[in-house]
Amino acid sequence: MKLPQSAFIREVGPRDGLQNEKQFVSTEKKLEWINLLVESGLSYIEVSSFVRPDWIPQLSDSVDLFTRLKKKDGVTYAALVPNKRGLMSAFEVDADEINFFVSASETHNLKNKNASTEHSMSDIRSMITECKNNKKTTRAYISTVFGCPYEGAVDQMKVINLANQLLDCGVDEISLGDTIGIANPLQVNQFLENLVKEVPVNRIAMHFHDTYGRAIANLYTSLLFGIEKFDSSNGGLGGCPYAPGASGNVATEDVVSLLHNLGITTNVDEKKLHQATSYISEQMNLKPVSKLFSVWNGSKESI
Amino acid sequence: MKLPQSAFIREVGPRDGLQNEKQFVSTEKKLEWINLLVESGLSYIEVSSFVRPDWIPQLSDSVDLFTRLKKKDGVTYAALVPNKRGLMSAFEVDADEINFFVSASETHNLKNKNASTEHSMSDIRSMITECKNNKKTTRAYISTVFGCPYEGAVDQMKVINLANQLLDCGVDEISLGDTIGIANPLQVNQFLENLVKEVPVNRIAMHFHDTYGRAIANLYTSLLFGIEKFDSSNGGLGGCPYAPGASGNVATEDVVSLLHNLGITTNVDEKKLHQATSYISEQMNLKPVSKLFSVWNGSKESI
Repeated sequence: MKLPQSAFIREVGPRDGLQNEKQFVSTEKKLEWINLLVESGLSYIEVSSFVRPDWIPQLSDSVDLFTRLKKKDGVTYAALVPNKRGLMSAFEVDADEINFFVSASETHNLKNKNASTEHSMSDIRSMITECKNNKKTTRAYISTVFGCPYEGAVDQMKVINLANQLLDCGVDEISLGDTIGIANPLQVNQFLENLVKEVPVNRIAMHFHDTYGRAIANLYTSLLFGIEKFDSSNGGLGGCPYAPGASGNVATEDVVSLLHNLGITTNVDEKKLHQATSYISEQMNLKPVSKLFSVWNGSKESI
Repeated sequence: MKLPQSAFIREVGPRDGLQNEKQFVSTEKKLEWINLLVESGLSYIEVSSFVRPDWIPQLSDSVDLFTRLKKKDGVTYAALVPNKRGLMSAFEVDADEINFFVSASETHNLKNKNASTEHSMSDIRSMITECKNNKKTTRAYISTVFGCPYEGAVDQMKVINLANQLLDCGVDEISLGDTIGIANPLQVNQFLENLVKEVPVNRIAMHFHDTYGRAIANLYTSLLFGIEKFDSSNGGLGGCPYAPGASGNVATEDVVSLLHNLGITTNVDEKKLHQATSYISEQMNLKPVSKLFSVWNGSKESI
């Protein structure tokens, strides 16, 4: 087992982070935050989602937000869509990449999408085809991979089966989500041992939440399997509104710090990233979850 | 590599936790907190230290605190001592175990103990002998094992050499401290590969800080080497006053949650532990660092 030389962050703060915070952050502030994230070197931003505005009012400005983005070359500005109506909106605003989601747990999928997993997969298949026709790259989230707040344990073979189905219909990347942060490194290890036999590692991203403080441990375990792509949220913002008790995506700053400490390159400038963390924290009057933040702000000596 | 079946927590909150918090917690409240910790099933409490009261005023009531403890059978109530004067006090109050400390980094040892590492080791040797004569078990902390805030990298062979010296003079347990939370799991892995060749694993405890969010990852890595003893602080309180930027011991609740999730027994009741976390957080008006706390307090559904 050998660590990769470089790794790639999918910054999901503006979408996955904000959707579970109560406050509405103005479009102007979102634009400023996204610019700071891009300036730090992040090359993938999940900007927003095209869900029903009454479901997730925090992201109700997604059309306006995408329209006003000043895109930087080499950066992917992605949109999450739940259905064809959302897909049409994402096409209209010319999102660079379209992201879909399905849950490995039937109950979670039902609560999240009001449909069976099979029905959701059928919709996603058809939408991926439309994306290909429109020359858009695609990404699919499989959520509750390591446990469901309603059903408990999740069958790992069902996850691998869903991943294979998604790859068969041509999705570019699959993000495997520990939606409630319940995974432990032993479980991640056992799961990935099976997964890598069936699925090409370079099409997989891991999406960890830090509810139980295990996200970095799980992420490190994934690195040992050659996985190079990770979702994270600046400031550790977010969670999942349909997963009770879920708290916070792993913080981008903790992920970048780990990767650099391991000698893995990311193209992210930690000091510039800290400016983005400071900005969104101040705007939302929240304390960033990463303890690193207090090191940056409080320490007179570099460590 | 196989995980141990059970693990043992050394609760250092009342000493290592409180010493780096600005507030003075009254003796009464400390007693109540310690009782709650013991009631949760923790069988080892580092109660306080016998340092100069003007150096660490938060722990200036250590004599009073030890005198008023209502000890429970089967629980070890330990005292940290910096020197012979402290040792005498610890003997007088009949502390169950005496804990010493030395730093693997000369500069850190100088700032922490105003002495060279060699000088400190000579003092510790002589104090361990006195403890043996008084039938007290002993524990020695080696700090800055994975990095020093003043010197940077720390020679791993120096750490192993110090550990061997301590074992030679009969210390019962050695706690290896990542004082500034800088370690990563790769580094812990490489270090432990060397350590376990030279030192019996059952005499070693690991002491991780969570400054960069890596404590749980480092702890999991240690479990894979058969290490069963871990220092942690309820609520994630604490740090090190002589290590700028150091923030917070790993939270006991995160450690227990990980261990139970891995199927490793601890004898700790998580719900009762949560009562201790709630108590000390309310008394100190601090938010516990563990995100788990918000799950316990905020979630209506069990996960």
